[in-house]
Amino acid sequence: MGKHHRGASAATAQKTTDTEPCRLAANAAALLGAGPGFALAAVDPNSTPGFTGKKADGAAALDAVDAELDELQEKLFAASRFGAGERVLLVLQGMDTAGKGGVVRHVIGSVDPQGVAHHAFKAPTEEEKAHDFLWRIGKEMPGPGMIGVFDRSHYEDVLIHKVRGFTSPGEIERRYGAIADFEAQAVANGTRIVKVMLHISKDEQAERLEERLDRPEKHWKFAPSDIDERAFWDEYQRAYAIAIERTGTVAAPWFVVPANHKWYARLAVAHLLVATLRGIDPQWPPATFDVAAEKARLDAS
Amino acid sequence: MGKHHRGASAATAQKTTDTEPCRLAANAAALLGAGPGFALAAVDPNSTPGFTGKKADGAAALDAVDAELDELQEKLFAASRFGAGERVLLVLQGMDTAGKGGVVRHVIGSVDPQGVAHHAFKAPTEEEKAHDFLWRIGKEMPGPGMIGVFDRSHYEDVLIHKVRGFTSPGEIERRYGAIADFEAQAVANGTRIVKVMLHISKDEQAERLEERLDRPEKHWKFAPSDIDERAFWDEYQRAYAIAIERTGTVAAPWFVVPANHKWYARLAVAHLLVATLRGIDPQWPPATFDVAAEKARLDAS
Repeated sequence: MGKHHRGASAATAQKTTDTEPCRLAANAAALLGAGPGFALAAVDPNSTPGFTGKKADGAAALDAVDAELDELQEKLFAASRFGAGERVLLVLQGMDTAGKGGVVRHVIGSVDPQGVAHHAFKAPTEEEKAHDFLWRIGKEMPGPGMIGVFDRSHYEDVLIHKVRGFTSPGEIERRYGAIADFEAQAVANGTRIVKVMLHISKDEQAERLEERLDRPEKHWKFAPSDIDERAFWDEYQRAYAIAIERTGTVAAPWFVVPANHKWYARLAVAHLLVATLRGIDPQWPPATFDVAAEKARLDAS
Repeated sequence: MGKHHRGASAATAQKTTDTEPCRLAANAAALLGAGPGFALAAVDPNSTPGFTGKKADGAAALDAVDAELDELQEKLFAASRFGAGERVLLVLQGMDTAGKGGVVRHVIGSVDPQGVAHHAFKAPTEEEKAHDFLWRIGKEMPGPGMIGVFDRSHYEDVLIHKVRGFTSPGEIERRYGAIADFEAQAVANGTRIVKVMLHISKDEQAERLEERLDRPEKHWKFAPSDIDERAFWDEYQRAYAIAIERTGTVAAPWFVVPANHKWYARLAVAHLLVATLRGIDPQWPPATFDVAAEKARLDAS
């Protein structure tokens, strides 16, 4: 969609006091999708595409969309118990402090924990390093009826690995193709993949890191390496842009969510998930038993 | 604690309009623990030990205790990132419709999904059957900083297996001891185990099964085998009573939560978890870096 599309969206945005996020609700995928011609540098991390309200409006809207997400998730889960194979994988990427944890807590946290498979990928272990980079990813793919959530993912293997030179350029090249193949197979097997980059600005990251340093109960979330990585900000932006271009497919698209406003990022991801689940359109399974006969047995029991 | 203790508790319960669940909040473990002399048959599934309020009061109280649970869980998780080994395992057992799923949704659902490891144990696979009954359990034990939740558990191997004769009496005997040993080792390794039986009456189960039959969106939760098992109600109660007696230890105690009132059961489990976490008393990890130096580096970045 790129710069032109985003510019057009901004120009046509209505300034109203209406708190119903109609455009975002109906068009989250189109507004945030990083299709052909997309340019990461043209996305304003401060923007709130498709939503003209403020923070309080966003919180109210999130409650509403979370409720829909909750019901759709239960249907997805129920259908899987009777043979439906669909499942969802949400891949969350972003610079440190981009708000991945907040999305998990405020969006994923609104659905039944028994239907969620969450995994945070850390630096690989020695055993993981001895395997192909997708080995540990495959083991964590969600089963039927589940919403899988990856907090970081196989994309680290073409992001930090590229930026910091942990891996050769040739192997990085191979990985783009391997990722596309791996994801295509997962899609063919019934997985809807939603890849999200939470996009913050460098200044916003500075404020969030400062808050972690200022508040003792946030110290555990800070590591000096966060500032080391920050020095490579521009390189990371380029690596993200390339990864998005090389691995964004119709089957497994990338979405770039402006995330300087945490409330907007959460609302946007919730809408992307709801749109994905609506696409599956899971149904309550029909009874596989004779309801009247079972009621008679129950009455007699 | 048994019949006498429960009777004494009921006699001293104050009938007040105070909605603060002081006694339950401060004494959940003592009020609900199934210690020496405990008699399952003496527990009234309709009772609400330590709480004199009604449903609306219970919902308000749950919001408050969920908030405390949320903070304690985050501290537990944070501490584990700096070497603390404690973790919690909540084992949920009960007859069909007892409300295990509701506890997961309304109690566990209040904490950050990234700190929860939930597993629902179903009928064992062929591979699982080929191993000792604790093999699949060990694989799902929570890691440091996590709250593990077992929706059904190794206790099925001494409950349905005993009632339906799937396993010989000698092997059932062995399993009580094996469970006690297994849990003792887990406790020694830093796991706080909270074993909960959600205790409903046979009449209450009939109402809940009828609701599942009456509502098409609940049909997926019903199976004709639920009514088959219901015919063994008394045998299950005896099997629970024996399992509780044989495997309840100071290190890994059983709690029997009256669960005819769903709101009470959720509130009670939340208090049991909060009491367990308070016992761990997790602390925000101190900074492992020089805060002033890092702020200077951040300002320069």
